[in-house]
Amino acid sequence: MTRNPQEIRPVKITRHFTKKTPGSVLYQSGGTTVLCTASVDENVPPWMVDSGKGWITAEYNMLPGSTSPRKQRDRKKVDGRTTEIQRLIGRSLRAVADLEALGPRQVTVDCDVLEADGGTRTASITGALIALVDAINSCKPNLPDPNIYPLRDNVAAISVGVVEGRAVADLDYAMDFAASVDMNVVMTGEGQFVEIQGTGEESTFTEDELAELLKLAKMGIVELTVLQQAALIDEWPF
Amino acid sequence: MTRNPQEIRPVKITRHFTKKTPGSVLYQSGGTTVLCTASVDENVPPWMVDSGKGWITAEYNMLPGSTSPRKQRDRKKVDGRTTEIQRLIGRSLRAVADLEALGPRQVTVDCDVLEADGGTRTASITGALIALVDAINSCKPNLPDPNIYPLRDNVAAISVGVVEGRAVADLDYAMDFAASVDMNVVMTGEGQFVEIQGTGEESTFTEDELAELLKLAKMGIVELTVLQQAALIDEWPF
Amino acid sequence: MTRNPQEIRPVKITRHFTKKTPGSVLYQSGGTTVLCTASVDENVPPWMVDSGKGWITAEYNMLPGSTSPRKQRDRKKVDGRTTEIQRLIGRSLRAVADLEALGPRQVTVDCDVLEADGGTRTASITGALIALVDAINSCKPNLPDPNIYPLRDNVAAISVGVVEGRAVADLDYAMDFAASVDMNVVMTGEGQFVEIQGTGEESTFTEDELAELLKLAKMGIVELTVLQQAALIDEWPF
Amino acid sequence: MTRNPQEIRPVKITRHFTKKTPGSVLYQSGGTTVLCTASVDENVPPWMVDSGKGWITAEYNMLPGSTSPRKQRDRKKVDGRTTEIQRLIGRSLRAVADLEALGPRQVTVDCDVLEADGGTRTASITGALIALVDAINSCKPNLPDPNIYPLRDNVAAISVGVVEGRAVADLDYAMDFAASVDMNVVMTGEGQFVEIQGTGEESTFTEDELAELLKLAKMGIVELTVLQQAALIDEWPF
Amino acid sequence: MTRNPQEIRPVKITRHFTKKTPGSVLYQSGGTTVLCTASVDENVPPWMVDSGKGWITAEYNMLPGSTSPRKQRDRKKVDGRTTEIQRLIGRSLRAVADLEALGPRQVTVDCDVLEADGGTRTASITGALIALVDAINSCKPNLPDPNIYPLRDNVAAISVGVVEGRAVADLDYAMDFAASVDMNVVMTGEGQFVEIQGTGEESTFTEDELAELLKLAKMGIVELTVLQQAALIDEWPF
Amino acid sequence: MTRNPQEIRPVKITRHFTKKTPGSVLYQSGGTTVLCTASVDENVPPWMVDSGKGWITAEYNMLPGSTSPRKQRDRKKVDGRTTEIQRLIGRSLRAVADLEALGPRQVTVDCDVLEADGGTRTASITGALIALVDAINSCKPNLPDPNIYPLRDNVAAISVGVVEGRAVADLDYAMDFAASVDMNVVMTGEGQFVEIQGTGEESTFTEDELAELLKLAKMGIVELTVLQQAALIDEWPF
Repeated sequence: MTRNPQEIRPVKITRHFTKKTPGSVLYQSGGTTVLCTASVDENVPPWMVDSGKGWITAEYNMLPGSTSPRKQRDRKKVDGRTTEIQRLIGRSLRAVADLEALGPRQVTVDCDVLEADGGTRTASITGALIALVDAINSCKPNLPDPNIYPLRDNVAAISVGVVEGRAVADLDYAMDFAASVDMNVVMTGEGQFVEIQGTGEESTFTEDELAELLKLAKMGIVELTVLQQAALIDEWPF
Repeated sequence: MTRNPQEIRPVKITRHFTKKTPGSVLYQSGGTTVLCTASVDENVPPWMVDSGKGWITAEYNMLPGSTSPRKQRDRKKVDGRTTEIQRLIGRSLRAVADLEALGPRQVTVDCDVLEADGGTRTASITGALIALVDAINSCKPNLPDPNIYPLRDNVAAISVGVVEGRAVADLDYAMDFAASVDMNVVMTGEGQFVEIQGTGEESTFTEDELAELLKLAKMGIVELTVLQQAALIDEWPF
Repeated sequence: MTRNPQEIRPVKITRHFTKKTPGSVLYQSGGTTVLCTASVDENVPPWMVDSGKGWITAEYNMLPGSTSPRKQRDRKKVDGRTTEIQRLIGRSLRAVADLEALGPRQVTVDCDVLEADGGTRTASITGALIALVDAINSCKPNLPDPNIYPLRDNVAAISVGVVEGRAVADLDYAMDFAASVDMNVVMTGEGQFVEIQGTGEESTFTEDELAELLKLAKMGIVELTVLQQAALIDEWPF
Repeated sequence: MTRNPQEIRPVKITRHFTKKTPGSVLYQSGGTTVLCTASVDENVPPWMVDSGKGWITAEYNMLPGSTSPRKQRDRKKVDGRTTEIQRLIGRSLRAVADLEALGPRQVTVDCDVLEADGGTRTASITGALIALVDAINSCKPNLPDPNIYPLRDNVAAISVGVVEGRAVADLDYAMDFAASVDMNVVMTGEGQFVEIQGTGEESTFTEDELAELLKLAKMGIVELTVLQQAALIDEWPF
Repeated sequence: MTRNPQEIRPVKITRHFTKKTPGSVLYQSGGTTVLCTASVDENVPPWMVDSGKGWITAEYNMLPGSTSPRKQRDRKKVDGRTTEIQRLIGRSLRAVADLEALGPRQVTVDCDVLEADGGTRTASITGALIALVDAINSCKPNLPDPNIYPLRDNVAAISVGVVEGRAVADLDYAMDFAASVDMNVVMTGEGQFVEIQGTGEESTFTEDELAELLKLAKMGIVELTVLQQAALIDEWPF
Repeated sequence: MTRNPQEIRPVKITRHFTKKTPGSVLYQSGGTTVLCTASVDENVPPWMVDSGKGWITAEYNMLPGSTSPRKQRDRKKVDGRTTEIQRLIGRSLRAVADLEALGPRQVTVDCDVLEADGGTRTASITGALIALVDAINSCKPNLPDPNIYPLRDNVAAISVGVVEGRAVADLDYAMDFAASVDMNVVMTGEGQFVEIQGTGEESTFTEDELAELLKLAKMGIVELTVLQQAALIDEWPF
């Protein structure tokens, strides 16, 4: 492990990677690559009709070739891990959204993992935010109030963990496998928490470890927020 | 809301509620009632054969009559929330378990919610630990090493949240519905963290709020640990 | 086998066992325990809309911990036996019901078996009737005609069988396993037949045996009807 | 209704209707037509391996064109009624079978309804017996003991019911629809009962009605047994 | 192989084989038997409502007893081959249909294979056309315009292939198994192509072979068209 | 439509687009983009064990963001079109493969469509061949016989059709939508046919049109073969 504990992997963000959806981001973080596409549907789910509000949701999927050995395709059912992750992505995006300002439409962000080397859920969130901005901007002429932007802030995510007794940021697959504690942290650009999910599989952690992990997470999120803003420079501030 | 923020709801624990399984606990916390039964299978899952270790897993389910209006039965598929919860219960129990000391057998803890008034996942974890102890004790003559007990510690769980701007413990359904931040904390009897899942649905939270929530959670877990130990008084210490 | 052939197992009936549904009965017969909850939905199934009539239906399920070894949860599909049983429960309840007098609403009775020691389907029917009465009474102010009660009579069920060449009533699991003929009989309080299901798995039976079985069944139903009426004493006659 | 109450509909039995399976019977009873094919598999189900015994099972299905309006094809799941019926057919055949004398092989009888005008389950049983005989005879050289035939007797089935207050035999669709009580009776050639399933949908029946229905059923079964024996004249007695 | 390469197997067509559907054809070609029933539904699929047009669709299924060894029933899912075939049948029928002239109703043709000896999909198409004519004629009084018949022409299908280096028509199962190239051709009575599906499984074919195969196909289709017209002589020309 | 009828859309082939699988090709043809990854599994399917041969199979999938409006994810079942296409891809690759020379291993080629603008199945085949070569070459040291390469030839595919009465090659989505006849042709580098699938949805075509379409297809395949060989220049001839 040659990275410093607080160092994150190199990130590359390619907007408009594909052309069929208003938002399309190829998000690469080290050996992890996620294609985040954001589509707009001018209808909302049945349970939201007449609420005047919009909805933002996400789906997550790993392509069979994203891992070695090949991952079997989810065609009969969605496994529990997939469901957990896509619910997390959706909640994270909605935490910074103003669904009334979005108007009665639904944005679906699809996060398809092309290559998996750890941190696919956090990469999905960080990339999805950018695709979401592009999708929202494609609706700009039709937003209910031109003065209220449907996003209040950025949102980004990072994994941190305890590996060989030491807190480290941005776990790749090998580190994740070796970690005794694994924590995903989702935060806004302004430094508010959106979601903390820390778990010790067959292990536990102390308050001091928790404090250390949260510190690393905050440092990483600050970096990711800067990268998001750079990628969206022509759209910033919202 | 007449409870104090740090006060937990009254708990009632009935061991051996049913007779077909070695562990069977009716766990009641306020208006929430969960039947936790623990069964032992002298075979392990295929991927564990030859590891010499055992396995502990959990399933979670809400009965149709546990809510009003009636909850439709999960018969075609398991919804995402159910999968998340039962994975959480299993991880929590395994965090305090010594799977080698359990020997090559599997314990399945079934948490069936008979009445739901908030906190069903945390009640399931806290009750499941007791059913697990009874199930393990039914195997005592057959454990690999009589001097190594397969559990290292208690584990219990509590929900905490921010309701109307104030941190409160042990949310019932009405409080959960009103909460801007909802956090489930799983801890061991000795005060180590097993799992932290904090989430702001369409909302965020600050570091101070996080600190306050964790404080309430620790206080509640201490109380629950005492109640577990009282219920298991004839088995304690393990 | 120390019971007399015509003797039924001890029955214990606990009304209002849970609080979320208007009807909730913990019905225990020997080592068999069923939780029967009855919920009211003020809508009827699509095919009944505009008929002015109501509907009564039932679902049946065995909890995993109700048997040893543990019964796998029905989560992908409902097995044939379960479907047969829940259809039987629904038909039995409807046989004594006046669906027009119920008005355009649906009562669903959920029979969840907590412990199984034979006779779970007959226990479900006998317990379900009581839960149904409580559910109907919760609608009393809204029934179409206050002078017409939506139930015409009680309904109860018992299993009888031929074990080691002898007709016996109320088979427990061991007896059921040993039986060459197995018959479930559903009757009204007034002694009318609702349903007879007699079957010889890899066996047959004579007219004399049939006559003997029906006699035992009638005797048992009389006892069960008395127990139902005692449990509902404050509601009786309907 | 011009038939007498005890009269059964005209029956036509065509053996070897198709050629791919050793047993293949086109069984027609009035407007009901069932194709019963019996296939032999020289393997038994996993749970019977090493028992030395064979197995007989059945599947039932209605073709989409067997009813008007067209019946939707069961392609995603098997409905409850279908499962009930195919379990009944299998049990009925096994009741007259000697599974040890069959040897370690499985016979599957498929009952596909080409036209449905009431009584499809009873027609399936009566036709399936004949297909089963042809399938068993195709194995004759390989039976464990040439002196023990794997069938002890015929089995046939008939529906009876109470229509407009009168007991009648062999209900067609219109009669079945109008019946207040519907009973299916399965009997052996020697007059033993195999199965009795009587049900009053939203109705009940008295002991006298039961006696009358059973009398009609026995008379019908005698006729059907004669017809089976005539169709199998070259194979009879077994 | 005693047939000449260009010779087709003997065909037998029985109209009105069953009575519940307006179209019902038992189509036999050598050892292959398909029951084609055509039902009319006076509603169209949701996506066609308000188009004023009708719809023609098909379903295909092999009965378990149609093959040896027995084919397992498709009850949980439809396999890929089945889906391919029923889409092909539907497209073939629609290619000669005038859906506006049919009016806002749906005809479903069910092709259930009773015996399979090769060429079940082509037999299904050829038989389905006849069932479709009978179904359409049952609607004659209600067609939008009495002067426009909803079919413009016949349609029939044949398989051809390269077996042992030689082009042959109308492959039975043994020939199909031995074929290096297998081609299904669907043509109208007037000799227009509707569908060509030629495939070399682990093999390829030349332009000359393609020409030879198409020649044989055309010759066969001419014969089948004559047989269809003979079967429909009382309805012909449409 | 500014292209000439025989002109194909610009093609861009990027090998090793992702790193987790030995073969990974981003294949772009006009507005259609397919990611073809080829994975090697050193086990063969159960039905091939002991055959000594290998197996090549394919899966096809369209990502939700590949179309506008967004395509729903296939998570419960695989639709008929998807199944048809992935079977076609697999057959096409196997037609040029020597499965004995591959040895007892399985190559799975996953074709995930990132952007769909017509011709996704033909792009998948043409791109899959290249990914397959890279996957096979990763096994080179372990092939059964170093002198027998497991591929005998290239394979490529193109769509052709009749649009506004004129035969044209390489249909994009708008042309495909307008086409009265649509044909997919798969050919080897040496000009042999592998597969021809021509279909007239609600339409038919003549022999002359067929001849014209096949001519265009052959011209296009020659171009695609050159492009494949250029992309594989360092591997060529195999």
